Amino acid sequence: MAGSNFGEILRISTWGESHGAAVGAVIDGCPSGLDINEEYVQGFLNRRRPGQSAFTTQRSEADAVNIMSGVYEGKTLGTPISMMVENQSQISKDYSDLENIYRPGHADYGFQMKYGIRDHRGGGRSSGRETIGRVMGGAVAEKILEKLGVSFTAYVSKIGNVEIDRSRFDKNEIMRNSLFMPDCIAAAEAEAYLSDLIEKKDSSGAEVECIVTGLKPGIGEPVFDKLDARIAGAVMSIGGVKAVEIGDGCAVSSAVGSVNNDKFRMSDGAVTKETNHAGGILGGMSDGSDIIVRVSFKPTPSIYQRQNTVTKDGEDTEIEIHGRHDPIIAPRAVVVVESMIALAIADLYMLNSVSRMDRLTDIYSK
Amino acid sequence: MAGSNFGEILRISTWGESHGAAVGAVIDGCPSGLDINEEYVQGFLNRRRPGQSAFTTQRSEADAVNIMSGVYEGKTLGTPISMMVENQSQISKDYSDLENIYRPGHADYGFQMKYGIRDHRGGGRSSGRETIGRVMGGAVAEKILEKLGVSFTAYVSKIGNVEIDRSRFDKNEIMRNSLFMPDCIAAAEAEAYLSDLIEKKDSSGAEVECIVTGLKPGIGEPVFDKLDARIAGAVMSIGGVKAVEIGDGCAVSSAVGSVNNDKFRMSDGAVTKETNHAGGILGGMSDGSDIIVRVSFKPTPSIYQRQNTVTKDGEDTEIEIHGRHDPIIAPRAVVVVESMIALAIADLYMLNSVSRMDRLTDIYSK
Amino acid sequence: MAGSNFGEILRISTWGESHGAAVGAVIDGCPSGLDINEEYVQGFLNRRRPGQSAFTTQRSEADAVNIMSGVYEGKTLGTPISMMVENQSQISKDYSDLENIYRPGHADYGFQMKYGIRDHRGGGRSSGRETIGRVMGGAVAEKILEKLGVSFTAYVSKIGNVEIDRSRFDKNEIMRNSLFMPDCIAAAEAEAYLSDLIEKKDSSGAEVECIVTGLKPGIGEPVFDKLDARIAGAVMSIGGVKAVEIGDGCAVSSAVGSVNNDKFRMSDGAVTKETNHAGGILGGMSDGSDIIVRVSFKPTPSIYQRQNTVTKDGEDTEIEIHGRHDPIIAPRAVVVVESMIALAIADLYMLNSVSRMDRLTDIYSK
Amino acid sequence: MAGSNFGEILRISTWGESHGAAVGAVIDGCPSGLDINEEYVQGFLNRRRPGQSAFTTQRSEADAVNIMSGVYEGKTLGTPISMMVENQSQISKDYSDLENIYRPGHADYGFQMKYGIRDHRGGGRSSGRETIGRVMGGAVAEKILEKLGVSFTAYVSKIGNVEIDRSRFDKNEIMRNSLFMPDCIAAAEAEAYLSDLIEKKDSSGAEVECIVTGLKPGIGEPVFDKLDARIAGAVMSIGGVKAVEIGDGCAVSSAVGSVNNDKFRMSDGAVTKETNHAGGILGGMSDGSDIIVRVSFKPTPSIYQRQNTVTKDGEDTEIEIHGRHDPIIAPRAVVVVESMIALAIADLYMLNSVSRMDRLTDIYSK
Repeated sequence: MAGSNFGEILRISTWGESHGAAVGAVIDGCPSGLDINEEYVQGFLNRRRPGQSAFTTQRSEADAVNIMSGVYEGKTLGTPISMMVENQSQISKDYSDLENIYRPGHADYGFQMKYGIRDHRGGGRSSGRETIGRVMGGAVAEKILEKLGVSFTAYVSKIGNVEIDRSRFDKNEIMRNSLFMPDCIAAAEAEAYLSDLIEKKDSSGAEVECIVTGLKPGIGEPVFDKLDARIAGAVMSIGGVKAVEIGDGCAVSSAVGSVNNDKFRMSDGAVTKETNHAGGILGGMSDGSDIIVRVSFKPTPSIYQRQNTVTKDGEDTEIEIHGRHDPIIAPRAVVVVESMIALAIADLYMLNSVSRMDRLTDIYSK
Repeated sequence: MAGSNFGEILRISTWGESHGAAVGAVIDGCPSGLDINEEYVQGFLNRRRPGQSAFTTQRSEADAVNIMSGVYEGKTLGTPISMMVENQSQISKDYSDLENIYRPGHADYGFQMKYGIRDHRGGGRSSGRETIGRVMGGAVAEKILEKLGVSFTAYVSKIGNVEIDRSRFDKNEIMRNSLFMPDCIAAAEAEAYLSDLIEKKDSSGAEVECIVTGLKPGIGEPVFDKLDARIAGAVMSIGGVKAVEIGDGCAVSSAVGSVNNDKFRMSDGAVTKETNHAGGILGGMSDGSDIIVRVSFKPTPSIYQRQNTVTKDGEDTEIEIHGRHDPIIAPRAVVVVESMIALAIADLYMLNSVSRMDRLTDIYSK
Repeated sequence: MAGSNFGEILRISTWGESHGAAVGAVIDGCPSGLDINEEYVQGFLNRRRPGQSAFTTQRSEADAVNIMSGVYEGKTLGTPISMMVENQSQISKDYSDLENIYRPGHADYGFQMKYGIRDHRGGGRSSGRETIGRVMGGAVAEKILEKLGVSFTAYVSKIGNVEIDRSRFDKNEIMRNSLFMPDCIAAAEAEAYLSDLIEKKDSSGAEVECIVTGLKPGIGEPVFDKLDARIAGAVMSIGGVKAVEIGDGCAVSSAVGSVNNDKFRMSDGAVTKETNHAGGILGGMSDGSDIIVRVSFKPTPSIYQRQNTVTKDGEDTEIEIHGRHDPIIAPRAVVVVESMIALAIADLYMLNSVSRMDRLTDIYSK
Repeated sequence: MAGSNFGEILRISTWGESHGAAVGAVIDGCPSGLDINEEYVQGFLNRRRPGQSAFTTQRSEADAVNIMSGVYEGKTLGTPISMMVENQSQISKDYSDLENIYRPGHADYGFQMKYGIRDHRGGGRSSGRETIGRVMGGAVAEKILEKLGVSFTAYVSKIGNVEIDRSRFDKNEIMRNSLFMPDCIAAAEAEAYLSDLIEKKDSSGAEVECIVTGLKPGIGEPVFDKLDARIAGAVMSIGGVKAVEIGDGCAVSSAVGSVNNDKFRMSDGAVTKETNHAGGILGGMSDGSDIIVRVSFKPTPSIYQRQNTVTKDGEDTEIEIHGRHDPIIAPRAVVVVESMIALAIADLYMLNSVSRMDRLTDIYSK
């Protein structure tokens, strides 16, 4: 444990401060024989790269990935895959004004209390750059799941009070607008809302959804390592997330059982459900329907307004944060949410392989 | 892993099918010298015991706990604490009608897909009785935390559309009404709503809140083992939970940063916050404010209405569930939510003890 | 961690003090569909039961196992298997003379330093009865491995200076003599040696060997979770073990590479080795040959001679230990060694199942 | 799990193939505030560096360490410490002759069976270069332990049949001879023996000892995570190790209890032992005496003689290994053995900190 490890069989360990030499991840337990190369992983990293629109920081880093081990001639070896991205901007700025002050909404105070020391430059280990390692791991996990017929669709579903209209849902639209919304009209409205907030030196919360398709039934372990428990822990660990919902989520508290129960029906010889209020998870195991996960992100805590705060030495003061900060976390976090869900599912999928004795004897009878 | 273990330093392993001989838990890693006895643990178990009102099953089991190891003359030894409760009603009923059929909203289908075999009697391992082990562990975790100045308040905050009025919040009211609500007027309304649903052979969803007071700042590990991540995983693993919120939860998606940021202020020499939108957790670590967790439970899936479903052999059929079932999960689950949060926090609290070299040298300098 | 858990996928948690209510084990992660019942497990426990000869304690306990969960109609469900054995003799004796004194060669002093409290009656958690849980787990692990074609032969190979003569090795002899030696002449010599020691109020060390046959090549994980590393950790965790050897063991320090290297040869279309100095493990993975493990047990520390020691309060004193104690640990420990090796191998065997992407796609393509 | 992780609280993850871009380690869970810099770690790595004498390979790599994260201004931050060493010689040679052939005594066959693919160049992940990551971790672990008063002495105690004479033991001699032996006469004899073997194109086994001084009593967890169990697993995971002994080790099988029991005596107000046959570990916990660990290394499997072997396609063949190889593993492995023992002890030391409730309340009462 100790914080920077995730997963049991497919285990990722991430490392790196935002203003250290680099950030990286080691992925252990990836099966051998998988096609992984830098171009493939770069495609995932590019989705979280800054500097792509008015709504992401202008800090323009290439974030070019290097694969240091575990891949030979384009195939995974089964050994740990080490990847890293160098920090290019790490010496560009003077952060000394933040050395003795706690930014509201940030981890500064907690780090100081926990460790008695912290790298105050740009958030250090609690910077958004920490998610680079998650996305590296997510790229590997999605490749494993792709081979097992599982695919992902993730997007921003709500910004402030602007929600997508599900009747206009267009998957192809997601990559066309700078906010990764599957509804171009909502995206335009949200852009206007955000532009207004930027002028007010303010920031916005948002909601991200992720749909997982093609997952076989039975994935997830009863009791503590349920599929939804692992997903909830995985996405709640992303900076800024304050709520996780599966299927109908919070709305179930107002529902009645006769409606909320998804009735089973046979369809083309397969067990299906008439509805999917459960979001594809029953009793902590996948039921063959789409997995539906919804995540609420708080507004970016770094805003340009003057705010009350205290110093490390226990004195009241005010802070005005400089530098470049996204007015919204969610768009660049879409691929992070997807990555964490992929890591959680791939780990449980692998574990599920050994849940039955007949499967074990099958594997070794060849 | 494999599902029935939780925690790294304070680790609980639970076991038992609802209609086997017993259900139980082994808690490893509990510090020595703690006062634990059967009477104390029984107090926790009694809060989830059935048969206490019209809104819980009439299956009347004493659920008397036996401590089998790890405690000597009323003090924990530091060795594993094994506890169990015998299943008294396990032979009382014929469950053969459920052997080949999947109950909607239940784990039956997943279990069959995962294992190719299941104990179909009353849910087996996915029965609500599985939570007895969680509460045993929660009792131990709360005792550890009590010594560290941490206390818990948990209650039902919403049933159907009946919400508690926070201006009427009365902690003492929680144990006075059968629905464990801290507002007697809301409780009365909710009782009427539930009585109506019972007549309609239907069931209701609900919301449970838990407030944790007295937690020092800095508890929780950065990145994957954040305090909120561990809490989210812990409570989402409880049967029937579909959403977990920390602090303002889902509402943050509509918020702006200038409001959502809790500003720091000194108060009586201590760092405090002007507001607590964050629910006591910043950057995955406690910030010294109250921890606020909100959990949404789906309606009980066992209802007396006839429902569509399928058989194990892939044929459409209908099911009518007999026996006694609560029309709502939440009241008896209040202590389970509290227990899981206590287990998550106690584990991270213990881990936090070794985060600084000066603490380590301190411990051993005596 | 915290001591009483072993294994990652197939995970055992044991509990119980020697003079508490019972001792037991919970085995999580056992695949479903395996034939397990109480009679089968009892067969393993009987091999470590006391009271069977002059060389084991006369404390005659039936040690009858109860399976409390995880097995339904003789088949494992995939859920945790909880087993226990009641302690029958726990109130038979006055142990107050041991409350404030540390027995030489025992764990008493360590327990007191670690926990500041201990159950001094008969060793408490450090009693030999603790191994009952290991054997319960071993019985399950061996059943899994039996289905995969793996079998075990374990025996006492040396007592004092009496070694078995390998030219007389007879597997059938093992269960015929009270010392579990595969050579009846050595067994007779050893019995004479032990009878002499008993008269002198002394005890003897011994060596146990375990041969594992039928293991496929490739089991074991590179680097830290090597097959030999896991086996070494597993058997060194048994009370009284002071050395673990694989294959030629200590003798390799005097060997030269040209002899010690086992050369590969094809035989009936299979890769084999001309010799087996390596004891079936190369680079931490099985190589298809027999796994050979050798374990050295120290003499029973409880002897009837008066010995120097100190009190809890730091005063020099003498101790004379009463009660009944085996003059040798090894014979009853044979099944414990076998059990720990089986647990280590079964866990790594299961993990090996997901080391290749083609295996994963195979499993789920059906 | 999955092989490249070690430790629970202080957890190291290593990565890298011998002929990939680099090899490295991530150490998570290191307490904050510790003085660590590249010069310090380099001192450890230099002890395993090749090219320092006739008895180590002439492959001369600087093996210069880079600390990539977790350290800020010379102090550990409590966040993961990522370190790496670039592989300089990785393109210097043609390894195509080894692509389809299994070297005797090496991991080649196991890797092929396990993964169906391998990086055949110089051993890949099973190369001795893998131990660089272990030594990086060991450097951190020893720094933690140094602050707690624990120190290490490790050396080669036996090469072939040349043993050190304990009456000539001189700690200062260890770093003076190329074989790291604490007895210059034995070292000279061993050098002659090795020179002779080099001429015969052969290699030698050897024995390494490690003494740990200053460890408080009570470190180590009862049952499965005993101090000796963790140490045994840790050192047996080093390539080439075939036996692990604690204290008197294998010799205990011939001992009698009246001698083997170390009697306790008070000395200057402290509990001490008259002898130390137990090697400082009783019941799996430290007893305050020196910890004594002895490890047997097999002869280097890469020898220049022609050897029988088989091809990947299942045909008998012969192999003659070229390149530069040490005629003995042990001298460069001394620091690796020390590192693994340090990692095992530091992890258990940290865990021990939370074994008592009074310690926990102490820590947080400040």
